[in-house]
Formats: sequence, C-alpha cells, structure tokens
Amino acid sequence: MEIKSVISFAEKHSQRFIDDLVEFVEIPSVSSSSEHIDDVRRCAEFLKDKMLQSGLQRAEIFETAGHPVVYGEWLAAEGKPTVLIYGHYDVQPVDPLELWESPPFEPAIRNGRMYGRGTVDDKGQIYVHLKAIESWLSEHGQLPLNVKFIAEGEEEIGSEHLEEFLENNRELLKADSAVISDTPMFKKGMPSICYGLRGLAYFQLNLRGSKQDLHSGSFGGAVKNPIHALAEIISQLKDESGQISIPGFYDDVIPISKKEHADLSALPFDKEEYREDVGAPALFGEKGYSVLENLWARPTLDVCGIWGGFQGEGAKTIIPAEAHAKVSMRLVPNQNPERVGDLFEAFIKEIAPPEVEVSVERLHGGDGFVADVSHPAFNAAKRALQKGFGKKAVFIREGGSIPFVQTMVDTLKIPCLLIGFGLPNENAHAPNEWLDLENYQLGIISSIYLYEELAQN
Amino acid sequence: MEIKSVISFAEKHSQRFIDDLVEFVEIPSVSSSSEHIDDVRRCAEFLKDKMLQSGLQRAEIFETAGHPVVYGEWLAAEGKPTVLIYGHYDVQPVDPLELWESPPFEPAIRNGRMYGRGTVDDKGQIYVHLKAIESWLSEHGQLPLNVKFIAEGEEEIGSEHLEEFLENNRELLKADSAVISDTPMFKKGMPSICYGLRGLAYFQLNLRGSKQDLHSGSFGGAVKNPIHALAEIISQLKDESGQISIPGFYDDVIPISKKEHADLSALPFDKEEYREDVGAPALFGEKGYSVLENLWARPTLDVCGIWGGFQGEGAKTIIPAEAHAKVSMRLVPNQNPERVGDLFEAFIKEIAPPEVEVSVERLHGGDGFVADVSHPAFNAAKRALQKGFGKKAVFIREGGSIPFVQTMVDTLKIPCLLIGFGLPNENAHAPNEWLDLENYQLGIISSIYLYEELAQN
Repeated sequence: MEIKSVISFAEKHSQRFIDDLVEFVEIPSVSSSSEHIDDVRRCAEFLKDKMLQSGLQRAEIFETAGHPVVYGEWLAAEGKPTVLIYGHYDVQPVDPLELWESPPFEPAIRNGRMYGRGTVDDKGQIYVHLKAIESWLSEHGQLPLNVKFIAEGEEEIGSEHLEEFLENNRELLKADSAVISDTPMFKKGMPSICYGLRGLAYFQLNLRGSKQDLHSGSFGGAVKNPIHALAEIISQLKDESGQISIPGFYDDVIPISKKEHADLSALPFDKEEYREDVGAPALFGEKGYSVLENLWARPTLDVCGIWGGFQGEGAKTIIPAEAHAKVSMRLVPNQNPERVGDLFEAFIKEIAPPEVEVSVERLHGGDGFVADVSHPAFNAAKRALQKGFGKKAVFIREGGSIPFVQTMVDTLKIPCLLIGFGLPNENAHAPNEWLDLENYQLGIISSIYLYEELAQN
Repeated sequence: MEIKSVISFAEKHSQRFIDDLVEFVEIPSVSSSSEHIDDVRRCAEFLKDKMLQSGLQRAEIFETAGHPVVYGEWLAAEGKPTVLIYGHYDVQPVDPLELWESPPFEPAIRNGRMYGRGTVDDKGQIYVHLKAIESWLSEHGQLPLNVKFIAEGEEEIGSEHLEEFLENNRELLKADSAVISDTPMFKKGMPSICYGLRGLAYFQLNLRGSKQDLHSGSFGGAVKNPIHALAEIISQLKDESGQISIPGFYDDVIPISKKEHADLSALPFDKEEYREDVGAPALFGEKGYSVLENLWARPTLDVCGIWGGFQGEGAKTIIPAEAHAKVSMRLVPNQNPERVGDLFEAFIKEIAPPEVEVSVERLHGGDGFVADVSHPAFNAAKRALQKGFGKKAVFIREGGSIPFVQTMVDTLKIPCLLIGFGLPNENAHAPNEWLDLENYQLGIISSIYLYEELAQN
C-alpha cells in the first residue's frame, strides 16, 4: 500500500478534521461532576459513532461501574501485528469559569489554536488517531496493521474502573504494542516520546473545630481555629528544602541514575524562559535536583485547593467551624499509592492538633510508569515522528499521571509508547486550554506513518 | 411619674413588641455586601418611621459617605440629664446559608426564641430601647430624662464613617451618659454590665504564585504553591503557646491587674460546659491565662476565611495561581489598630517566601475600650438591672468589638454603659442567630427602670 496518497488525503481534509474536532469538544464530559453524568454518556455514544464513521469495523460501548469505555477495532490485516490505541474522552472541570476568555465548551479558534476544555487533554489526541485511521481507510480501504482503540471516561478521576475492564477483556485487548497520545511534546517543533510518568495519590483533608461558626470576637482566644490547624498541618508536609516530611515517603523511590541525569541534562531546557512562561517570581523545587528531574523523576506534593470560613467581599468576623484541603502527591515508579496513603494518614494523625477533629478521605491513586526504551517499538516510533515532523524525536518523561499505563503494561505485557502531540503550556487542567492546530495536523500525519512503521515490527 | 403603669404597659404589649421586631428583622440590611445597599437604606427609613411611631419628637436620616445614620430624640425633660442610646441596624452576612434551619430573613419563633439574622445583633436590642421609650411615652406622654438615639448602618464593617458623623455633630449628640445594648449577658439569668471591649484589626492576604492555574502533574515540583506559602505564613503568625509572633505586637498591651484577675476568677465559669457548648474536642488559648482572660483581656488572632484552587467535588489536579485569607486580630485597649497593621505588614513581608507575590489589604480596624466603673452611671445601671431582672448584675468584659465606643468616649467625654441583653451562644455572626424572647422582655423592663435611675444621677 502506498502511503503518499494517505498523507495527501490528510492534508486535503485538514480543515474538516478541525471542524470535526469542534463537535467533540462541545460535549461537556466532565467526569468528576455528578451533574455531567449524562454528558459523559452522550460523549461516549458520540465517539462510538465517530469510530464507525472513520471506517472501523466494529465499535461498542462497554459499561463499567462508573463511566463507560468506548471500544473500536479494525482487524483485517491478516498476519500483521496489532496496536492498541488508548485515549480518554472525559475532561477536567472548568472552574474558575470567569478566567476563560471564551466558553470552555464552545471551541474558539484564535491564532492557529483551538481553545476549549479537552482540546489537547485528550479529545484532540483521540482525534489524531481517528483521523489517521480515517485517512488510511478512505484511501486504501485498509490499514497496514490491526487496530484496537479504547477510550475511557474516567481518566481525570483516576481510571477507577479501567483495571476491571482490562481484567475482564484480556483476550479482546490482546495486542503487540500500545500507543497513548496524552502527554506533551518537550516543546514546539520537537517531537517527543515519553518513557516515564508519575503516579498519583489524591486526598481530601477535613477539619472541624467547633459545632458551628463562632463570633471571632466573643470566642477568639478560647478555641483552636481549624484554618490555623490546617495551615499548621500543610506547613509540616514539606520542609524548607522542598522534601516531603511524611516518614517513609521516600523508602521506595528509585534514585536517578547517572545516565539518566546526563540524558536529562542534555535536553535544551531554559530555566529562565520556563519561569517567565509560568509567571512565578522564582521557581521552587526539591533542593539537589534539576527542574526536569523534579518534574519527571522525583515525587512531589501539592495542595490543589483549600477552603474554610468567609470568602466574600468585606470583613466577616468568624472563627469557622470547618476547614478543608485537597492534597495531591505525584509519585514515581515503584511508589505504591496505597502505601503512600497509609503513611500520609498516619502522619496526619500524628501531627493533627488535639483541639480539632481531622479526617482523611482518599479520592484516588495510580501507579507511576517507566518504560524499557530498547524495545523495537520505540525505534519504529522514532522513525515515524522523524518522517511526520521532519525533525529528530527526543526521549522525555512527564510529571503528570496516566494511571492506566502501568496497569496496562502489567496486564497485557506489551510495550507502551507515549507519543503525545500537546505542548507543555497548553493549559491542560487550567482555564483557556488550547491545542496547537499545526501539531494536530502533524500528529495525524505522524500517526499515519506510525501504523506503517509498527506494521513492520 | 409613676413607673408601675409603664411596666404594665410593656407587659401587656409583650406579644406585639415581638411581632413588631419580626418586621425589622425581615429587612436584609447586610452592610458588607454591595448587593444589599438598597436594603440597608430601606432599613434606615423603616427605623426612622418606627422612632417617630414610638413617640420620639424628631427622627432623621443623616447621610454619610457610606450607609446612613438614623437619629431620633426626645428632649422635653427640662433640667434632667440626657442619655445617648446607640445601636446598629446593619447585620452580618448570612453564609453559609445552607446551615440555617429557617431562612435568615424570615424570623421564626421556636421554643421561646426568635431565629433570624440580626435578632440579637443588634436589631432586637435597638427595639428593647424603642419599646421602653414607647412604654413611657404611651403611658405618661413623657420620659423621665432626655433621650438621643442613634443607630448606625456600618457597625459590622468597622463603623467607618461614624467618627466623622460624631465630629460633625458634637453639639447634637451632647449627653451626660451613653447606653449601648450590643453585648451579651454573662449567662441567662445573670444581668451584666460590660466595662471592656476588644479592638479590631482586619486584613486580607492575597498570594499569587503563577499567572494562572497549573497542571499539578506537569508543574508539580518546579513552583511554589501559593496555598503552601499561605499555610506557612499562617502557621508562623502564632507560636505553640498561642502567642502572636508578630514582633512588637504586645508592646502596648496592658498587663491584667491582680484585682481584675481576682474579679474575673470569681465569675461562675465552667470550662467543660463552655467546651461542650462550643463543640470543640478541646479548648485552646494563650498559655498562662484563664479562658475569660484570653477572651476579654488578651489580644488574639484568627483566620476568618481561606480560599484558593479547587473546592468542588472530586479530584481536580491543579496548582492554583492564587490563595487568599481573611485575618482578624482582636486587640485590647491601648493597642492601636493602625500600628498593629504596620507591624503585621512588616512581618508578612519578612516571612513571605520569595517565590510568591504577597499583598496585604487593610479591611478595617477599631480601638478597644475599658471603662472607669466608679462613675455613678454604673451604679444606676446596677440598680436598674436588679429591678428589671430581680437579680444582682455582674461586671464583665467582652471579646468582641464595637469600634465606636472608644471613639464616642474620646469625643463626647461621657461614661458609656454597655448593657446588653443577648446571650453568648445566640450565634451572632453565625447561622441560626437567635434572640431569647424572655430576655427581650426583661431588657425592655430593665430599660424602663434604667431611664428613671439615670434621671436621678
């Protein structure tokens, strides 16, 4: 099969591929919010239809105890290997809504970018593959290899039911390699293969000081304020060097090897440019490590949200009854989220002031991942990206988490390629998320090449 | 003039006096919220009309740069002293609204209590005086002394424009003593004269770490989280002994005298009962002082609210761009709120981590107050309360603030009696604020006596 005409098809239909993506982004498939439960299902149905329209032989909704999984396949490449493509059709919440320059679910195109929730994370990247598949099938009526495509609806809430789905459908999902497009490129013009992800352990801390809010004058001086107690707890979670203070937390952390330290140091990273891009007065990370090491190969802890008492205009004088915080830890491979949860709970119990009630809710967790890049699939990916972008691909890691990846590697025993077409500053999880439309197009073309390269493995 | 018939009038009309109060509480005169600005004005107009209906000779709205002051007078008691009555018709915000058992501005009567925002703080107590005045004037057509009555609309936001009003109306407000009913009784059945109040200094802390929210995976480990920075700042504001750590903060604090220590220790205070009433696992206050000393005669610091990042259901994984807190300090007499503000700002600048931008907004401040109880007005008050309640009055202080009091004492050079008819657990500033209706009635009767006692001074 001749590939040039497939590339031409993709180039000729590039505007329609953009228009098609708009429809997908318009569905507010926020998986964490119960008010969007019907939207999530509608999005799954929509994607199933689009899989069939792209030419896949079969597409189906698989129920789980949570949001459904969408599965599609094309298996007519006899004697050829099978690739399993994974993506997620659910998206992050949109608040703070007032910071969006255009509504999150009304995709807007400005300066070669598509703005909207899910444009890059991960709907645009699902469509990269769907459009590459469509291009092959439209041009030749067949693909160079067999394709299985799964899209889950719970990635942003910890892929809670995907492991069970995987266990129950081992035969169905059997493949020779997996491809996931949900990680960023190192920077624009630098196609990237990601070989490592961090894990995640996410908690909510709930504190109660009194049975109800108290007048801060009449009661101030007699009770422990739960916001103070929460601040004391949070301030004890890390020391001044940026190290996490939970006893035992680093026990399972694998040290960074000399080779990896050298490889990461060789990447063209400009600290001052990064700082400016983030907009922080200064950077802050664990002492003794480079920024990339802290982002990719060291665990970290962040408070993702905090609330308690009066947040309005003016001056309400109360001692609040309650205070709350969301605490997220990014773990590295070999750290177990359950064990980290146990260590965290024990530490919170130890340091919680006796004058308040403290409880820990475990919201979700997932393993980290690191790949063996010597597998031939990684070389196939390198060649495909070189052809698609006309530039040499780099090997990187990523600080974010895709909990499913390690589970998939463990269950299916296949190599997993993380080839993403997003950019690090595309505001995934933040207001004004966007997708670079040139990368969208180059991603489709690279994927067209990728299927051919993997077919030869 | 015979007083017995005045008391009878008040007793006969006790139900109507309750019904009348309902109308007053129904007006949502929340002074801190710009959306209630018209309600605050409507409340002032309403009160002006009620002053005239109670029989005062004159009532008028005085404009200020903020919410208006309502002034009323009855000056026909020739050769008799003049009492200046002060109250405030504005109320605290109502959130968290969902914790109210009945709507805050639809007063509900349950078990001898009236529930609603402002019932005790301070609308019910304004009405105690208005109904005592009405009883005298209905029965005898005159009062035993001259009365001037002011009600302001900005007490809950720091009485910002009252000092100017006072300065501009010194002649109008000239009196021999002042009476304020806005403080609680020590406990039910124990009529109380308050001789001390704490001052107030209220701030908002605003922190910014990055120009927008960041993905906690992709950026976690490279930047300082503003919630962490805020937690570190808050945790450094007090030490483990409960002392405030701001350098210079205690410089102007007058130590508690041996006599006052003995007097306060003699009050029937049950620490365990207090703890249970508050609903805290344990009490917490500055070491080395009793609970009452910490509440009344020692300064304190509380965070009244905190917010930043994701507060919704589930697990959004971000590093927020901003974090905020409302910080309130209760000061003791001789501490200057402006100076405390300077010390606070300097300390915040000193301890703020360099990786975040921190700013301090000064929201409001007010002086503390302590009275010379040897003035004859205090004896008059004791006699009136003894007659009204049939029980001996106690001398107490109060941890809350009425910034106007010290200003009034300084400007008018008159003794100020703080005689309140609320109870400490009536949820002023909290959901389900209530007023004990027996105290409302006894307050009216005691005030009828009080005017007669003060007339003889």
